[in-house]
Amino acid sequence: MPDKFIEKKITPKATDYSEWYLDVIEAAELAEHSPVKGCMIIKPNGYALWENSQKILDAWFKETGVENAYFPIFIPERLLAKEKEHVEGFAPEVAVVTHAGGKKLEEPLVIRPTSETIMYEVFSHWIRSYRDLPLLINQWVNVVRWEMHTRLFLRTTEFLWQEGHTAHETFEEADKRAQMMLDLYKKFAEDYMAIPVIVGTKTESEKFKGALYTYSVEAMMQDGKALQFATSHNLGQNFSKPFDIKFLDRNNEEKYAWQTSWGLSTRIIGAMIMVHGDDKGLVLPPKIANIQVVIVPIITAEKDRKSVHKKGAEIYEKLKKETDLKIKFDERDKRPGEKFYEWEKRGVPVRIEIGIKDIVKEKVVLVRRDTGDKASIHWDELPRALNQMMEDIQKNLFNRALNYQIAKTKKADNWDEFTKAIKGGNFVMAHFSGDEKDEAEIKEKTGATVRCIPFDHTQDFQPFDAKEEKGKCVYSGKPSKRRVLFAKAY
Amino acid sequence: MPDKFIEKKITPKATDYSEWYLDVIEAAELAEHSPVKGCMIIKPNGYALWENSQKILDAWFKETGVENAYFPIFIPERLLAKEKEHVEGFAPEVAVVTHAGGKKLEEPLVIRPTSETIMYEVFSHWIRSYRDLPLLINQWVNVVRWEMHTRLFLRTTEFLWQEGHTAHETFEEADKRAQMMLDLYKKFAEDYMAIPVIVGTKTESEKFKGALYTYSVEAMMQDGKALQFATSHNLGQNFSKPFDIKFLDRNNEEKYAWQTSWGLSTRIIGAMIMVHGDDKGLVLPPKIANIQVVIVPIITAEKDRKSVHKKGAEIYEKLKKETDLKIKFDERDKRPGEKFYEWEKRGVPVRIEIGIKDIVKEKVVLVRRDTGDKASIHWDELPRALNQMMEDIQKNLFNRALNYQIAKTKKADNWDEFTKAIKGGNFVMAHFSGDEKDEAEIKEKTGATVRCIPFDHTQDFQPFDAKEEKGKCVYSGKPSKRRVLFAKAY
Repeated sequence: MPDKFIEKKITPKATDYSEWYLDVIEAAELAEHSPVKGCMIIKPNGYALWENSQKILDAWFKETGVENAYFPIFIPERLLAKEKEHVEGFAPEVAVVTHAGGKKLEEPLVIRPTSETIMYEVFSHWIRSYRDLPLLINQWVNVVRWEMHTRLFLRTTEFLWQEGHTAHETFEEADKRAQMMLDLYKKFAEDYMAIPVIVGTKTESEKFKGALYTYSVEAMMQDGKALQFATSHNLGQNFSKPFDIKFLDRNNEEKYAWQTSWGLSTRIIGAMIMVHGDDKGLVLPPKIANIQVVIVPIITAEKDRKSVHKKGAEIYEKLKKETDLKIKFDERDKRPGEKFYEWEKRGVPVRIEIGIKDIVKEKVVLVRRDTGDKASIHWDELPRALNQMMEDIQKNLFNRALNYQIAKTKKADNWDEFTKAIKGGNFVMAHFSGDEKDEAEIKEKTGATVRCIPFDHTQDFQPFDAKEEKGKCVYSGKPSKRRVLFAKAY
Repeated sequence: MPDKFIEKKITPKATDYSEWYLDVIEAAELAEHSPVKGCMIIKPNGYALWENSQKILDAWFKETGVENAYFPIFIPERLLAKEKEHVEGFAPEVAVVTHAGGKKLEEPLVIRPTSETIMYEVFSHWIRSYRDLPLLINQWVNVVRWEMHTRLFLRTTEFLWQEGHTAHETFEEADKRAQMMLDLYKKFAEDYMAIPVIVGTKTESEKFKGALYTYSVEAMMQDGKALQFATSHNLGQNFSKPFDIKFLDRNNEEKYAWQTSWGLSTRIIGAMIMVHGDDKGLVLPPKIANIQVVIVPIITAEKDRKSVHKKGAEIYEKLKKETDLKIKFDERDKRPGEKFYEWEKRGVPVRIEIGIKDIVKEKVVLVRRDTGDKASIHWDELPRALNQMMEDIQKNLFNRALNYQIAKTKKADNWDEFTKAIKGGNFVMAHFSGDEKDEAEIKEKTGATVRCIPFDHTQDFQPFDAKEEKGKCVYSGKPSKRRVLFAKAY
């Protein structure tokens, strides 16, 4: 195929992974930088992926009893300051409105970096008795965190997310909820985005500021770095006390509520790009793709144009009727090669090619985006074959990523092994005492952080010895109860 | 029914319409004021109505080729200033971020009051040729306008809306698009929210700042005041010129694009409350209701509790299976009267009562929220009867509102008739020359504004003589070509 219609080549992954990532986003028209530094414009192709993700997750949240609501984007400074750790964590990166309606405001307003404080101030009025619990609220909104180093989808000054906030009668119930939502995030990552993940608990230094425990879903990118896919926090009573969220319990005694919060953002799109993409561009898991199948008519002689287009349209209508697949018939007046290239860049899972020769045989050619494999399929077989292919692609993407993750997860039993494995771009399972000073030094020396203390249950892929096991910290030699997951991270 | 469980009575409409409005919102738990002045918290019951509206409209938009995207909430001041009328219209009510990340910003950032400027700056890079047109973009987002006098849903500092922005090759195509979206808003208002509306063009002084023409959908509230339900703007080339949105046309000549923008906000919830609500609270059109049918078991003797609840659950399951209705089975341990009161306040269209006596007869009692009518229906008939009742309620709400609107729309041929009709809380069709100074004086003297110059087509209800007709301005005596719609407005 001649290159003349290739406006800009995608930098090969092997040459520069960061450049490759940005090139794929540009080529697939997912997002771009905005006139405001650090903010992103999510273009229709990218936004459709977010919408699909929202639809799936929102239905799951509601099945567990969660209701959607909307809280203001503005948080009075005094509210943000109510929980000490929380304000210390977020104050350095907030954007502040000082003037509005042509006047200086009496109290500056912070643009929500997250909504614990504004929500919990209000929860304290909503909750009176155990009968008002559990309170299960979620919102799909924009948030702002003034980041210095931004990267499309992964870290932007403004991003879109959902944040769930709940209040419960007991610690146990709150913890169950936090883990329930973590399980949904894991299920979404693995079954929909085809991204294998490791779930676990964050260390003290890596947890959400204000949380008792932070649970997280961690994924491995193709450069071996970790990306935090979503987090779920057991907030304990850390917020209910300063915000005075009290309720009369079943014994008519006044108690502070137990809380959780949990969130997932547009950075999941970044994760999906980095886990599945290749040198041709985006590769979409069928369950997230907005277009799953594209039909491209192949015109080799002008006299055939009409009959090929007619048959293409017939197949389009047949598939619309007989399947639930999201299909596009690309009738545009462009060369087939140009169209192939375009749909490959955009990651459409399957391409159907139909030419005059296929019509004679009552067949079409199917081309898989993930493997490039071609198959010639009879028209009658098409609905079944396509549905099967969607399943196969979904599975193949997951397995490919899982095998990569397994191959790139190493066990390190001494500092030398550890530093080598981190340098090699691996996930490293190593003993660690839990000492925060040591943790900071390890980060300083290697760039690696503790991604999580993996749960010893619920993992599809059990990274080595996540179960309890006596050992010595790979850095300090101090006693350790279990291995934790170290990696460099986005 | 004893009043002891009635926490707070709803102020009767006749006593104080404004108080009634706020009481209904509180009683139905739709929204409340937030810790930040002028901002609102949309509670789950209210947010569900917005979500339902979004779902319907979003699907319609997409059917016309519109794609969703996301543009940043921040607009650099220099961009807002590019279109002169636009900045003059919005600058007085913007909120401004001056500090972020602990530092003073070099250029203050305005929080979007609407997104023409940030979007069109970007459109100018996206559009090169007629092949890139039409460009049809929509976003569902929060916007901020610093209002002095706020009222839940109707006018709040921050609100949720959708804003569509399009670019076209010709004036005609842009105007067709602006009117197409207006038609969708009208269809949504009438067929879904059961709100009859009048559509037309805004006068120069009432149009969107920066638009060539503004088309609007106007509805009558129960106090005779008008509420602007949605607007659609033909922007002409007013923005494409300052923002340099040029394209090579089919003759390879450089042209400025023709544009539209159109929006609908959470204030539609306020309209729905005010058009249908009564002294018992909210009245929901079935097509918007989140719960359409509530089943309330009536326990008269404790010994019957189990069998009544069992039958209630059976009916719930039967209806879940045999209909698409959104049903709730209220099993809570509360007195039936208390439950009736609660669901009435929340506006649920139909209540099903089932007691021990009904079980013997294999019947239930249906109670309509809009009329209070009761009917005893055999179990076998229930799915059909409920579906029919939903249609009847939907129609009845629309017709009731339409009849009210017709009765309260007066024709005025002189100043005396005009002022009396306005004082009486009417819509008034009167001749008006179009003179902006006269328009301002009429507003000053009566509080009434020109809501729109009604189209002489597409109205279900044709407000008197909207067609062209020679006459004299009711205020100045200057010649007039047609009657326009005057009213006081929210």
